[in-house]
Amino acid sequence: MYAKNLIVSSTLAALALTSSARADDPLPSWNDGAAKQAIIAFVQATTTQGSPQFVAPAERIATFDQDGTLWVEHPMYSQVMYCFHRVDVLAKAKPELKNQQPFKTVLSGDLEAIGKLTMDDLVKILAATLTGMSVDQFQADVKDWLATAQHPRWKRPYTELTYQPMQEVLRYLRANGYKTYIVTGGGQDFVRVYAEQVYGIPPEQVVGTAGGTKYGYDKAGKPFLTKEPKLLLNDNNAGKPEGIHLMIGRRPYAAFGNSTGDQQMLEYTKAGGGARLAMLLLHDDADREYAYGPAQGLRDTKVGTFTQALYDEAKTNGWTVISMKNDWKRVFAFEQ
Amino acid sequence: MYAKNLIVSSTLAALALTSSARADDPLPSWNDGAAKQAIIAFVQATTTQGSPQFVAPAERIATFDQDGTLWVEHPMYSQVMYCFHRVDVLAKAKPELKNQQPFKTVLSGDLEAIGKLTMDDLVKILAATLTGMSVDQFQADVKDWLATAQHPRWKRPYTELTYQPMQEVLRYLRANGYKTYIVTGGGQDFVRVYAEQVYGIPPEQVVGTAGGTKYGYDKAGKPFLTKEPKLLLNDNNAGKPEGIHLMIGRRPYAAFGNSTGDQQMLEYTKAGGGARLAMLLLHDDADREYAYGPAQGLRDTKVGTFTQALYDEAKTNGWTVISMKNDWKRVFAFEQ
Repeated sequence: MYAKNLIVSSTLAALALTSSARADDPLPSWNDGAAKQAIIAFVQATTTQGSPQFVAPAERIATFDQDGTLWVEHPMYSQVMYCFHRVDVLAKAKPELKNQQPFKTVLSGDLEAIGKLTMDDLVKILAATLTGMSVDQFQADVKDWLATAQHPRWKRPYTELTYQPMQEVLRYLRANGYKTYIVTGGGQDFVRVYAEQVYGIPPEQVVGTAGGTKYGYDKAGKPFLTKEPKLLLNDNNAGKPEGIHLMIGRRPYAAFGNSTGDQQMLEYTKAGGGARLAMLLLHDDADREYAYGPAQGLRDTKVGTFTQALYDEAKTNGWTVISMKNDWKRVFAFEQ
Repeated sequence: MYAKNLIVSSTLAALALTSSARADDPLPSWNDGAAKQAIIAFVQATTTQGSPQFVAPAERIATFDQDGTLWVEHPMYSQVMYCFHRVDVLAKAKPELKNQQPFKTVLSGDLEAIGKLTMDDLVKILAATLTGMSVDQFQADVKDWLATAQHPRWKRPYTELTYQPMQEVLRYLRANGYKTYIVTGGGQDFVRVYAEQVYGIPPEQVVGTAGGTKYGYDKAGKPFLTKEPKLLLNDNNAGKPEGIHLMIGRRPYAAFGNSTGDQQMLEYTKAGGGARLAMLLLHDDADREYAYGPAQGLRDTKVGTFTQALYDEAKTNGWTVISMKNDWKRVFAFEQ
């Protein structure tokens, strides 16, 4: 009886341990490895009272690039897809656009020709589709598009194509007193429309490429803001630490990116005192997502590229490279 | 014995009531009146579950002008005093400035001549004293100055000249789930140096007039940001709602100001749906602080003025005017 009880107890204890280990794992979609360990060690070092690297709660800032770091950026940034959609809508109201470049090319749907558009062409498209309307109208338009637009590969809304392991990191950091920010090269106003629902990140914690607005009054005397074609912050490359200073005013303790567009944010974060976490996501998983980067050949996104030099800087500066293929148990929440 | 007990009990009960009324009063430095009632009614309407004007916690944003709303702005904005101090420091390093305008005038100490400096002169002074150094150096310089600089009338650090009734409003709103922001015409980087210590408002909740920064590396390869003479946001007048959109991305539910520089922020706040609180502080207390505004003659600060038109707009639009003289039991924490 004693022996039997012992066996039952041991089994129950083992079960309890397993279950408790699972319940206690803040990053269940991560495989055990250097990347997962780096995140957990960083959180423990900076949030355990008495730790020499303890960080006061008010100072706990973590910044995340969005496209390619929190969600899929292939084959095209979602915001570019939105702009192309808006060109369609605009052309319905102003048919003369059909004969004007660069709109004619966009409307042709010829992906090869679209791929050859110049930066000047893109600026014209951005100005036509992202400015001139009220802030409220813009938010409503983006919301409408997000409700119906689908990613061509997964046939799901873009908002479902966030990386489950990164969602876990966001929640884990917040549970430990970190304020999580998006610091994106994408449009600040665009990302703010869905960041709260998709990532639990409120608009005031989204830093992005930002244009000016203009205050005015409607016919009834009610004030409103109009989006202006005036660039205030290009939140890429050096613009990321500059944007962090403008919008947050503190150096992050942790930063996550995936391209040269994030290089300076990672450098700036890592250059602070105490424990700092800089992580770089390597897309090396063509089966579950995409493969691009030093091992897979380079890709020029016109904004950021994962180059060999970036990979080398990561190794030299103590950043941690996350291998999507090896470090992630699953990529999306909808996978079982 | 019974009668005596009854008297003792009644007295104790009365004392307890008085003490409890005091302990429960979130705004003890305010006299009972329309202004205090407006604040309390607003908080109750927007934070009581089931109230038709209930506001979700994430949406609770309150914005405060700083100079003249949270602390004394007379006889000169503290930041202007700082810039003049820095001209002194600069002239020690570069004696040739003593013969160059507008620095010569500032160094003369001739208040009448200083009062006649043009906006162009001021821009030169601001560029020379607020830009060209690293962000870290600037913060250290401001901290040093704040530790020794005194207001000419009270002979106290500027950081002690905050209005105690407004400190109570900040705490009361935060205790009810509001995120409190400073939205100031003053320099964002300047105010961020002390806002956390003085108001409990962290750097990321300070919106102000902001210049660009430039990312670079020191000789050891360590990255740092340099303050640039490039204006990104003039956070006055229409710049206040524009700055709120840029930095917060939500319309405030409550806003506090004291001049035409705050007009558009108050209009924008009040134009939102549901319960919105817009309050305008009238400086009508020459004894305890200063008197300026429609009843006392106008004052042109080059940035904001409390005009008759502003007073009229307040009355028409349902803003609440706070009379410093009548609504405040005490002005500063150091008063008994």
